[in-house]
Amino acid sequence: MCNIITLITDFGVDYYPGVVKGVIATINPAVKVIDITHQIRSYDISAGAYVLECSYKYFPKGSIHLVVVDPGVGSARDGVIVEAEGYYFIGPDNGLFGWLTQLANRIIKLDNKPEYCLSPIDNTFHARDIFAPTAAYLSSGVDIDQFGRPVDKLVPTPLPRVEVTKNIIKGEIIYIDHFGNLITNITKNILKNDAGINIKINNHVIDGIVRCYDDVKKGEILALWGSSGRLEISVNQGSAKDMLDTDVGASVIITQK
Amino acid sequence: MCNIITLITDFGVDYYPGVVKGVIATINPAVKVIDITHQIRSYDISAGAYVLECSYKYFPKGSIHLVVVDPGVGSARDGVIVEAEGYYFIGPDNGLFGWLTQLANRIIKLDNKPEYCLSPIDNTFHARDIFAPTAAYLSSGVDIDQFGRPVDKLVPTPLPRVEVTKNIIKGEIIYIDHFGNLITNITKNILKNDAGINIKINNHVIDGIVRCYDDVKKGEILALWGSSGRLEISVNQGSAKDMLDTDVGASVIITQK
Amino acid sequence: MCNIITLITDFGVDYYPGVVKGVIATINPAVKVIDITHQIRSYDISAGAYVLECSYKYFPKGSIHLVVVDPGVGSARDGVIVEAEGYYFIGPDNGLFGWLTQLANRIIKLDNKPEYCLSPIDNTFHARDIFAPTAAYLSSGVDIDQFGRPVDKLVPTPLPRVEVTKNIIKGEIIYIDHFGNLITNITKNILKNDAGINIKINNHVIDGIVRCYDDVKKGEILALWGSSGRLEISVNQGSAKDMLDTDVGASVIITQK
Repeated sequence: MCNIITLITDFGVDYYPGVVKGVIATINPAVKVIDITHQIRSYDISAGAYVLECSYKYFPKGSIHLVVVDPGVGSARDGVIVEAEGYYFIGPDNGLFGWLTQLANRIIKLDNKPEYCLSPIDNTFHARDIFAPTAAYLSSGVDIDQFGRPVDKLVPTPLPRVEVTKNIIKGEIIYIDHFGNLITNITKNILKNDAGINIKINNHVIDGIVRCYDDVKKGEILALWGSSGRLEISVNQGSAKDMLDTDVGASVIITQK
Repeated sequence: MCNIITLITDFGVDYYPGVVKGVIATINPAVKVIDITHQIRSYDISAGAYVLECSYKYFPKGSIHLVVVDPGVGSARDGVIVEAEGYYFIGPDNGLFGWLTQLANRIIKLDNKPEYCLSPIDNTFHARDIFAPTAAYLSSGVDIDQFGRPVDKLVPTPLPRVEVTKNIIKGEIIYIDHFGNLITNITKNILKNDAGINIKINNHVIDGIVRCYDDVKKGEILALWGSSGRLEISVNQGSAKDMLDTDVGASVIITQK
Repeated sequence: MCNIITLITDFGVDYYPGVVKGVIATINPAVKVIDITHQIRSYDISAGAYVLECSYKYFPKGSIHLVVVDPGVGSARDGVIVEAEGYYFIGPDNGLFGWLTQLANRIIKLDNKPEYCLSPIDNTFHARDIFAPTAAYLSSGVDIDQFGRPVDKLVPTPLPRVEVTKNIIKGEIIYIDHFGNLITNITKNILKNDAGINIKINNHVIDGIVRCYDDVKKGEILALWGSSGRLEISVNQGSAKDMLDTDVGASVIITQK
């Protein structure tokens, strides 16, 4: 029995997350539902996967992470439950969970049995009619094998690769947060030694990495290791997104002197 | 005794919903509060009624739906509790609940007794001072008749009518969701046979109704039956609102060939 | 033991509040977390202090208010727990809590003991690594003195003063809410007699104070006493911010005839 279901969606500020919570509360009144975010950029599967990766492990083991960024809702794409790292992950198999493949103990492809779905199933709102009921029944003790049959593959997550050549690392912006901080796909595993580097983004060059935002003057640009363990370009008390007028996908090039 | 109070308001991302939850938790710590949405367009009573209609029945019977879109706050308009379909509905009697008239078992006009309100009652925030305490006391077991006297009418909901003539149905956009989907007031009861139709909105003509968003190419416009059972104009992985540059109130005309 | 932790942050619609809730649920699954708002204007300490002041007392005594608007995160600024008025307040000591100094029974400067923090402590996300665990452990019964040592000062809250001279009161806009209502720093204690006054803001002059929004016609400007006990400039069913094209910091001048 699980006590927590979390929600990551691109449903925004609309009433859809509320309805999902109603469905869950009707099936399992005892489970606690916690919003992680509903502001994944519309249809952006990579951003959904990124936010999930940054947040899932901060919840108690046994938590169910319900993730719905689902441009193909109602089409032939499958729904899945992934059991990995002591957590359950439920949503469409469209790349949201591909990064979990190596970590997964079990992957169940949903067969949408009527007893675990709302009826009729609407082709535009599987979160309400399939995924929320699945999460609620799983949380209330229904065995994971009841929801479908085991498979061994997940659709890969569309994440950009980092190119590493002698003295040069080329990554890109994969997420921009509420403050306008630019999060890159460059991790400490890739950039093991950050001494004597400079970082180029658009026409800006940043010398080295600081420890915290306040290490530079208000309004100045900086680079640091962000809270997800990735290199982040920021402006102290400002928005790097606005200052650099940039977006997800822009190149970030690190040169070791 | 009720276990769930839901919230639908136009309070947005401000601190007002938080204060409402504090008031409820102070009176009845055991009740669970679930946000449906706080992003009803400011002062838009029709949108509040629409979202309520789309969501109320997904919650367990006995739930209390607190709905506050209240441009007349502090004026002579009344507050009400409506008991209907096994649920309770609380808020200003300004049209939010008119569509429930035929379904209502009981309508209680609030008389704002001091023992069930905060004191003093502020003229700009009845959600905090009247409606939240009413919902909290009702959820904790106070009899519905304690809150006022029975009446038999509700202010009608200002919803646009659909005009049906031979081979032509004329409806309009009543709600635009977070994805930019355009929800119309045309239901399956009105359009019983959707074979051989075309749908006109602005200068666009859509041929027929598809099953899911993914039935057309990315970026293309389509019409389908949405999750609330209404005809919806959408763009696959895009925003119909942006593509058509349209808004609530725009005409949607269906012609049967 | 406390049953409620509330959250006030400038984290917006991002996933950061979700992670904070995961950390709390992991440490103390029994405590209820209630969002007050996450939409404090980025880095705006005064707005955070204002919202806290408007909302804290609507929660049950014993509640813990976690407030994180933290432009100096990771720098030398301290974290604190303030015990005041039967509540606990946790966050960075940067002005958010200065207004509580006279009311405080105890102020504890956090020493970030490893047993009450996540490890490692990230320099960009103390809400996750220090403040959330502190709140969760405090709520689960750890004695307040375990978190650090008592101090007797808090960084003052940067709130603008009201200038009062014969027949003239000069205040300013300190907060703009979701509806575009302009909240000033002028309270009833300052303006004891509101007969025969006019209120000047930009080039608009408002005659006297009304009782509720609906006392003027739709679209007209008005002044009233708002729900936080402060003078508020509003537009009936409209946005005063948009109509007056103004912002926080603008002057509001009251003249007694």
